[in-house]
Amino acid sequence: MTFKRKKISVIGSGFTGATAAFLLAQKELGDVVLVDIPQMENPAKGKALDMAETGPVEGFDARVIGTANYEDTKDSDLVIITAGIARKPGMSRDDLVQTNQKVMKSVTAEVVKYSPNTTILVLTNPVDAMTYTVFKESGFPKERVIGQSGVLDSARFRSFVAEELKVSVKDVTGFVLGGHGDDMVPLVRYSYAGGIPLETLISKERLGEIVERTRKGGAEIVNLLGNGSAYYAPAASLVEMAEAIIKDQRRILPSIAYLEGEYGLDGIYLGVPTILGAGGIEKIIEIELNDEEQTLLNNSAESVKAVMKVLA
Amino acid sequence: MTFKRKKISVIGSGFTGATAAFLLAQKELGDVVLVDIPQMENPAKGKALDMAETGPVEGFDARVIGTANYEDTKDSDLVIITAGIARKPGMSRDDLVQTNQKVMKSVTAEVVKYSPNTTILVLTNPVDAMTYTVFKESGFPKERVIGQSGVLDSARFRSFVAEELKVSVKDVTGFVLGGHGDDMVPLVRYSYAGGIPLETLISKERLGEIVERTRKGGAEIVNLLGNGSAYYAPAASLVEMAEAIIKDQRRILPSIAYLEGEYGLDGIYLGVPTILGAGGIEKIIEIELNDEEQTLLNNSAESVKAVMKVLA
Amino acid sequence: MTFKRKKISVIGSGFTGATAAFLLAQKELGDVVLVDIPQMENPAKGKALDMAETGPVEGFDARVIGTANYEDTKDSDLVIITAGIARKPGMSRDDLVQTNQKVMKSVTAEVVKYSPNTTILVLTNPVDAMTYTVFKESGFPKERVIGQSGVLDSARFRSFVAEELKVSVKDVTGFVLGGHGDDMVPLVRYSYAGGIPLETLISKERLGEIVERTRKGGAEIVNLLGNGSAYYAPAASLVEMAEAIIKDQRRILPSIAYLEGEYGLDGIYLGVPTILGAGGIEKIIEIELNDEEQTLLNNSAESVKAVMKVLA
Amino acid sequence: MTFKRKKISVIGSGFTGATAAFLLAQKELGDVVLVDIPQMENPAKGKALDMAETGPVEGFDARVIGTANYEDTKDSDLVIITAGIARKPGMSRDDLVQTNQKVMKSVTAEVVKYSPNTTILVLTNPVDAMTYTVFKESGFPKERVIGQSGVLDSARFRSFVAEELKVSVKDVTGFVLGGHGDDMVPLVRYSYAGGIPLETLISKERLGEIVERTRKGGAEIVNLLGNGSAYYAPAASLVEMAEAIIKDQRRILPSIAYLEGEYGLDGIYLGVPTILGAGGIEKIIEIELNDEEQTLLNNSAESVKAVMKVLA
Repeated sequence: MTFKRKKISVIGSGFTGATAAFLLAQKELGDVVLVDIPQMENPAKGKALDMAETGPVEGFDARVIGTANYEDTKDSDLVIITAGIARKPGMSRDDLVQTNQKVMKSVTAEVVKYSPNTTILVLTNPVDAMTYTVFKESGFPKERVIGQSGVLDSARFRSFVAEELKVSVKDVTGFVLGGHGDDMVPLVRYSYAGGIPLETLISKERLGEIVERTRKGGAEIVNLLGNGSAYYAPAASLVEMAEAIIKDQRRILPSIAYLEGEYGLDGIYLGVPTILGAGGIEKIIEIELNDEEQTLLNNSAESVKAVMKVLA
Repeated sequence: MTFKRKKISVIGSGFTGATAAFLLAQKELGDVVLVDIPQMENPAKGKALDMAETGPVEGFDARVIGTANYEDTKDSDLVIITAGIARKPGMSRDDLVQTNQKVMKSVTAEVVKYSPNTTILVLTNPVDAMTYTVFKESGFPKERVIGQSGVLDSARFRSFVAEELKVSVKDVTGFVLGGHGDDMVPLVRYSYAGGIPLETLISKERLGEIVERTRKGGAEIVNLLGNGSAYYAPAASLVEMAEAIIKDQRRILPSIAYLEGEYGLDGIYLGVPTILGAGGIEKIIEIELNDEEQTLLNNSAESVKAVMKVLA
Repeated sequence: MTFKRKKISVIGSGFTGATAAFLLAQKELGDVVLVDIPQMENPAKGKALDMAETGPVEGFDARVIGTANYEDTKDSDLVIITAGIARKPGMSRDDLVQTNQKVMKSVTAEVVKYSPNTTILVLTNPVDAMTYTVFKESGFPKERVIGQSGVLDSARFRSFVAEELKVSVKDVTGFVLGGHGDDMVPLVRYSYAGGIPLETLISKERLGEIVERTRKGGAEIVNLLGNGSAYYAPAASLVEMAEAIIKDQRRILPSIAYLEGEYGLDGIYLGVPTILGAGGIEKIIEIELNDEEQTLLNNSAESVKAVMKVLA
Repeated sequence: MTFKRKKISVIGSGFTGATAAFLLAQKELGDVVLVDIPQMENPAKGKALDMAETGPVEGFDARVIGTANYEDTKDSDLVIITAGIARKPGMSRDDLVQTNQKVMKSVTAEVVKYSPNTTILVLTNPVDAMTYTVFKESGFPKERVIGQSGVLDSARFRSFVAEELKVSVKDVTGFVLGGHGDDMVPLVRYSYAGGIPLETLISKERLGEIVERTRKGGAEIVNLLGNGSAYYAPAASLVEMAEAIIKDQRRILPSIAYLEGEYGLDGIYLGVPTILGAGGIEKIIEIELNDEEQTLLNNSAESVKAVMKVLA
């Protein structure tokens, strides 16, 4: 019963991809293959080498390599896709969608070719539509194609609440449904500090501000950085999902999952609470929504569908 | 006996400074203040916010803030200086030295003003001369002004050896003296895998290649990245030294220390084995060198002195 | 600004005390002094030595010593009291109370003598009355004398729920008020899996069984062991509280706290939600109880008062 | 490519077995089955339950169960044998050997029946002969039957040296060959602090005392405890070896390995430096011994052979 280390491929060696690769190695979740296009192969190799050289100091054993050759991803246990472009000033949303759709298609074809039984985590924006694209292109069962947005959105929410209450982030939970960012559906009544409903600890008005700040959380950082977008929290969010799958933890985490009737929605990828384990999305958890929440979720689904219409 | 969290300020919010800040927070070594110049204050704030938002996912409690106001560093327990410029194509070494010397002077004046009893770790290149500059400018006792180079150099060496032997990085040790990079004095006879001298496990020729690769380790990554230099391993190296000090671990780690007669050298900062604890450099360990090693160390000292002559 | 390691004394070197000492050292929360009576000094020394010898393998730096001399606890940052006897067959409750009260008095006198500014965590049963005894004997402000029961009770509850739902323990929260064990007041409506109220995930009947199993959680293990009582989870619970205090994390954790009007109760120590940080109990959080819950809490308070009447 | 958690069975639920089970679970190395004889099944269940209840506090996801039914160990990835009796006053060595041999035979038959492809780690004393017994009884290839003694012996040595030099245990290495305890062959010249040979840091006389204390390290703790023997460091040592195998780390660690010509010895299990990875003992490292060391090793081998003669 010889077992080898897990193998995780991260597609896209930008800041988020690289940071995810670093965290995966640091936690000894497996060997890591950092993949980029041929023009970016050397930077990918450089980042991978820099990470590998960190092993003796941080005390982790993990191979980290950079490559532009998908053959190196062969038999990956998990693949994380961060590739694609960010929206630039003057670029229409449709241009972004179509460009990243092409990226997803070409990346997925290569991934599937070398790892036909892997599980895929998608971060690329617009993430709901891009996860759908990977799902379709891969031909994988729905439970093995998963998008990330809710872990990040609720991490931001939780950090703002912890700061507001001056308590440990470990004791604050958050709960979001729906699309990423502006389309996020925060379920404040399912969010707590030390198990105590936030609505009893923070005024409705202040909570509304925190929710609004969470919605705009990505933009807040883009504006501060001036050039680029957030990558620490997005990468850590991907890695939390990856760890749940690799270690079969059966975490209850929000995932972008393919809905077939759940929450009254069908044929789209949207953020919902799920159980993540060795089998990928092992279960979609349906919770009762009130009318207001269902309406917000429906609106979020409409937004996603509008983006999906742009897909070629 | 109320105790509060430790406070660590990181000066310079570039990739190395930011990565160091992230690792400090992730390990809950203290609250972190990421400082940059006014023009870079917003990016520093953006990175700090992104890190803080990672707390709920990674499970750490640490405040991380970005600022251009040194008042925010008040009463730091530890200060890490990564500020300064990197050498650009066409720039003379002397220009680099003089520019970074100015940066060190202004940074040190501000640091000392607000944290007169802190300990300072320096990474800025050329690091031996820059640590000396901070020492002089601060008026601090020598044990509280410390430069980093040997932890990084030996981390690289260890990762190359572990790869060569296909063994865990945890069981490979390395030992370097002298200046950083080209001026590094590797003591291969004090380097082991599982306690076994490397000289008995790897051919002399191959070991020579590994040493040479280590010397050029920074350049190897610069060349691959194309634009920028290594930051994961440098940041982790700083944080290992910081942890030794913050937790009073009395680690035996190579530091750039002020020599007053040790190893036959006087009045310069150079890489030597030290004990790092709550008091900073609590001891310089003198080991016996053979003639060849002493000559290499003397040459390394000459290089450092040549740089020091450029100091204003 | 030289800082040294924190110092934590654990009084009582039985299984719980020893396991707590081990976890404190393993997490590098400070140096650990394991104290017992003169007749048990050698076993305490033996356990401490065994733990210290674990340091190189587990990779922690912490001094661990065993002693019967309270002088060795001088200037402790935190003291954890696990000393006392367990109830034996045929022993009346009053005998237990009076015996352990004597132990608390003598231990507290010694602790206070050498560490007048420390914070004290109490585990000894009956824990509400024993925490009160230490409070009175120490003359300490109430926020620096704290009892443990709710972290353990909710840990048991959480593990049972996670097993029931087959999900990660990381995503299940529990909430208990009142006394330990039989007097526990579980607030199921404040308990969740992934933020989803347990009442919507588990049938009322099954939840009732889980609550009942939690109440009897200590006895379940006593019956299985045949000789002795639980120590892993009790020790880990103490250490979680200790970590919150040592690292100033401001965790929201249930503590046995001295009530002065909170929840309509006065002059007794009882389990309530608190914020634990560098200052000990930095805040008692009052949540709204429904009539049934308030009644249960009042009953729990009556039980504690009945025990307190036995105190000399 | 669905992967499930690793499964590790620990045979023997005494202090060492239980502590090993706890550390395995705490590090999330896999699900743990704690096995004991039918008369001890309930205590094994009690300890397992106590550990499982620690999961929510320590933040680990691992099933831990106690059992007397070997069917529960089915398809274990790793099996750790700690079962057997300790030598009691008045018991002859031969009685101990024969009693524990019977235990090994019956345990091994059961283990192999349910996990024919597993790897086995043995701790039971006299460990060299007991590992041999398991090897013979299992019919397994030699690389998958491994004994523990050197990790523990060198951990003790390292902790004594770190205390002597007042430096971090992280920077002290030790090196031992041969049998356990009295038959240990310490290679002081392969032992270092920060890479510096101990012989240059500690006087020969003092080093001799430390070696002698290491040899008697088990007895020192037995004498202090009065009733029982060390279990923290032995358990942690087993877990370090287990982690190397489970995570395929290729650690260089001393193992009790089956020699077939290495070090001039044949047909016995003895402590030698090895590479531990997914394949068990992936390599025995032969180092050059001087005459004195070879003589000590031969003597150690003779001691082991004398014990082996007692085997039925």
